[in-house]
Amino acid sequence: MSSEKDNWFIEHFDSAGTAFGLRLKRKLESVQTDYQHIEMWDTDTFGYLMTIDGATMLTTRDNFLYHEMMAHPALFSHAAPRNVLIIGGGDCGTLREVLRHGEVASAVQIDIDEQVTRFSEKYFPELCESNSDERAELRFEDGVKFMQECEAGRFDVIIVDSTDPVGPAEGLFKAEFFRHCHRALADGGVLVQQSESPLLHSDTIIRDLHANMREAGFSHTRTLPFPQPVYPSGWWSCTLAGKDHDVAGFRQADATGKGFETRYYSADIHKAALVLPPFMEQALS
Amino acid sequence: MSSEKDNWFIEHFDSAGTAFGLRLKRKLESVQTDYQHIEMWDTDTFGYLMTIDGATMLTTRDNFLYHEMMAHPALFSHAAPRNVLIIGGGDCGTLREVLRHGEVASAVQIDIDEQVTRFSEKYFPELCESNSDERAELRFEDGVKFMQECEAGRFDVIIVDSTDPVGPAEGLFKAEFFRHCHRALADGGVLVQQSESPLLHSDTIIRDLHANMREAGFSHTRTLPFPQPVYPSGWWSCTLAGKDHDVAGFRQADATGKGFETRYYSADIHKAALVLPPFMEQALS
Repeated sequence: MSSEKDNWFIEHFDSAGTAFGLRLKRKLESVQTDYQHIEMWDTDTFGYLMTIDGATMLTTRDNFLYHEMMAHPALFSHAAPRNVLIIGGGDCGTLREVLRHGEVASAVQIDIDEQVTRFSEKYFPELCESNSDERAELRFEDGVKFMQECEAGRFDVIIVDSTDPVGPAEGLFKAEFFRHCHRALADGGVLVQQSESPLLHSDTIIRDLHANMREAGFSHTRTLPFPQPVYPSGWWSCTLAGKDHDVAGFRQADATGKGFETRYYSADIHKAALVLPPFMEQALS
Repeated sequence: MSSEKDNWFIEHFDSAGTAFGLRLKRKLESVQTDYQHIEMWDTDTFGYLMTIDGATMLTTRDNFLYHEMMAHPALFSHAAPRNVLIIGGGDCGTLREVLRHGEVASAVQIDIDEQVTRFSEKYFPELCESNSDERAELRFEDGVKFMQECEAGRFDVIIVDSTDPVGPAEGLFKAEFFRHCHRALADGGVLVQQSESPLLHSDTIIRDLHANMREAGFSHTRTLPFPQPVYPSGWWSCTLAGKDHDVAGFRQADATGKGFETRYYSADIHKAALVLPPFMEQALS
């Protein structure tokens, strides 16, 4: 549920019992696509805001936190990531981060709704600057169906850049989906899924996610928390799963000398994000 | 500015252009003290909520993040903290964490408004469980005046557990106040101040805070970020200042074997919190 009143966009996270809001300059555009209702807003202090069905997706100011943490920990946890798949991620911000890695030969992005990408090209052009990279392939189709039919061992890293596990994205958190991911990954493969709030979801969604990934055959799983102001509680996480190796290890020297700029991610932040507070360790043990 | 509508308490952080809210069961109590307007609420998912002049102070569910990070990094950064001063902190949550340290011989808490402590005793009794500890002294008076008159070298650790640096607490972020703290600290002393949001304030309040602490004579300063859902952006920080030593070091073995339970803090979380993301390092360099 969201409301627009007195120049504030307020999203009420009903299941969390919390709300987050941004002061608006104005509403820019809105469209009902075949799949969802996309709205674009100009905010006072966070730049542009994209909402889908009333839920905050991203803003200009703070999306770097999410996109850097969805891409770099997973890629540096793989020994030599050449072929990368992104499920969801239609704003193309994760794709941009993935293509900063010189060893990536191909990155396929599969979002069901082309309009998300068209809006992003217009309002977040900085996130789309790698869309014409010859290594990038943008497909607009059903990611779950793609995974079901995907040939075995095709990808080194799969990034599930999805919305919350309610409604359309629910299936992306289930063991059945992860089994398809496991099969589609080559040996040494790494899967990463955005995994909600450490404060709100450690003993529910995050715990279940680990169980489902293990059930699907992944040998190791790790949750990395990071700040994300516009999502419920302002504290978010990604969960990595290694097909056959411990994702607590990563190419630290490569991450340190990565040769491209980041604003949140660094080798040291990666190490720090692998440290969980006691209450999370307990919830996930 | 805050509003109460349709069973939601929404605080609009006007300078940040963001808002945070909690769904309410009901309003419990409210009082106009000599200093401020205190209100208590029962929320749906965060337990009790205390607001002062419409601003969120703390909730049952997430105050452990703030209180543990205001107390333990500072105390473990001191070689042997015996005498501790808390300026503000009337809810007594920081005091409780301080008194978990067996080597602390005395902890003085100075909050101008006794009613904050009375409300906390009623609604957050778990935070007040050490108020009758014989090492604790609760004083209700002006912390700035106390610091001006404080004898030199009296304290080992000073914790400034204040509200935002606008209005009454503005002086608690200035070099003049920090000079009094510097004088009141014995050799090896450590000061810690809550220091707002890494995302919103790195190149303003946090940067100025470091400058003011250094100007006051502190040799080393470090900011440690941590999550705090109910404050603007959900990402918060404390800034440590060493009178004459680098507060990047701490008693790691003691922190590891601390012998009391914490939910967020650990020796590894302490180390992790000392790692700043590149954008903060740049803002503070």
